[in-house]
Amino acid sequence: MQYHVNGQLVDASEATISVEDRGFLYGDAAFETCRAYGGEVFEWDGHLTRLRGTCETLGMGDAVPDDLHERIEAALDANDLADAYVRLSVTRGVQPGKLTPAEDVDPSVVIIVKPLPRGGVDGEKVWDAPADVRTVDHRRIPEVSMPADAKTHNYLDGILARLELRGTDADECLVRDVDGAVAEGATSNVFFVDDGTLKTPSLAGPILPGVTRAVVLDLAGDLGIPVETGAYDPEAVRRADEAFLTNTTWEVRPVAVLDGVAIGGGPITDRLAAAFDRRVEACYDAQ
Amino acid sequence: MQYHVNGQLVDASEATISVEDRGFLYGDAAFETCRAYGGEVFEWDGHLTRLRGTCETLGMGDAVPDDLHERIEAALDANDLADAYVRLSVTRGVQPGKLTPAEDVDPSVVIIVKPLPRGGVDGEKVWDAPADVRTVDHRRIPEVSMPADAKTHNYLDGILARLELRGTDADECLVRDVDGAVAEGATSNVFFVDDGTLKTPSLAGPILPGVTRAVVLDLAGDLGIPVETGAYDPEAVRRADEAFLTNTTWEVRPVAVLDGVAIGGGPITDRLAAAFDRRVEACYDAQ
Repeated sequence: MQYHVNGQLVDASEATISVEDRGFLYGDAAFETCRAYGGEVFEWDGHLTRLRGTCETLGMGDAVPDDLHERIEAALDANDLADAYVRLSVTRGVQPGKLTPAEDVDPSVVIIVKPLPRGGVDGEKVWDAPADVRTVDHRRIPEVSMPADAKTHNYLDGILARLELRGTDADECLVRDVDGAVAEGATSNVFFVDDGTLKTPSLAGPILPGVTRAVVLDLAGDLGIPVETGAYDPEAVRRADEAFLTNTTWEVRPVAVLDGVAIGGGPITDRLAAAFDRRVEACYDAQ
Repeated sequence: MQYHVNGQLVDASEATISVEDRGFLYGDAAFETCRAYGGEVFEWDGHLTRLRGTCETLGMGDAVPDDLHERIEAALDANDLADAYVRLSVTRGVQPGKLTPAEDVDPSVVIIVKPLPRGGVDGEKVWDAPADVRTVDHRRIPEVSMPADAKTHNYLDGILARLELRGTDADECLVRDVDGAVAEGATSNVFFVDDGTLKTPSLAGPILPGVTRAVVLDLAGDLGIPVETGAYDPEAVRRADEAFLTNTTWEVRPVAVLDGVAIGGGPITDRLAAAFDRRVEACYDAQ
């Protein structure tokens, strides 16, 4: 496998970054996880917009290189990959001395790619089974301490949440905000269906505005499924008719169990997953 | 300069880490900033204990190598350094695939060293002038989201705080907790003197238990200076008789100004700084 590091294709085994890069020292970096279907980066505009927004939040608004998409294509081509996981990182690079960031940024740009199965209507899911989810004690960092729409290399928030699953069968957690409302999973947004209405935590809370979340809300509109966003108790999810998680790699993944309570997908989850697959399929049709 | 990376001394320009190291991808790493005086790592036990505690919090309790102190000595020797800044990082290393950390850890261990002036009674301070401090809007991450005693590569908390100082003359910030109480600086603990009593935020709040903070409290006890720890409003600091900041590199640094209000050091700050210098001087006497 070859990765793309600072404008160069390099063997994965030699893809490195300086130990003085602020992305390493402080997690001072923006990232995106994208998915390529048939060689096309799905929802590229959404990912690029969020990546630029994260860099803006980090005070390095111009750090995203103009040719980022071309670099991704080069990485996919070099590995002969059409269906792939694509992780983009833009760091503040190496700066002298102090914690306070210098305004002049020479960013490090890293692109990691990995093969994934084909997606779309005839595709294969990357998950083996619906999710086993457990509510954890760890709370999502509040907005006053970390803007929720920034996707950065400071990812211990999710790791500490996942560590609480050790010794259990669960593979994703339900993370609440400091007030106790449902926020999201460690790497996913949460949806549930209550009496025919699709519900998901509002972005007024400390919620990552997931690209897949936005697509699903858009598809729900197309399908005429009523949507409500708000602040919800975990109990509202536990007693839901259906529940599912979304992220770029999982796409739409049903929740089998939350805190030991069986939920599962259902007709609305299935309709949204099928509509999502059709939207993905358009990437292949475009080839 | 030579750094120490995974058991090897390497030229600083070639000191790198894999782009798949979790310390880079997620800031999934513990660190300490130490200071060597006359070749001796000051308060080594305090730093080692906190480093092990951070690794414990991160679910990798055994990640700190037994020979870490020997590695530091090797890095100092290789650069012929007796007075130095020493940054230690212990990451979760490279692990396959998922965000959920595997229990089996092959940590990456990085030691960065830089020359610093001599410390102690005849030493030279690393700061040019007393600090110009400003209260920022950014709030310290609460304990339910990030244990405050963990010192990790997730350091955007401090960076976002420092970014608010752009365009001002301030060089450190006063960061409050989500309830509005004084927490700490971006890289320092905060002390102030009110009517002869030394005051500092209690560790009940989201405060890094600074090694220098602990030394100063110990010295205050030795000198018979009354000490109070508690929850304080920024206004209490602004109207203080004296104020200073502590961290490993700054040692005891007076606060010239907070939010435009002149404070400065004073007799108690001076006594503590002198006592601190004497304790450091013992490192040289021991040679």
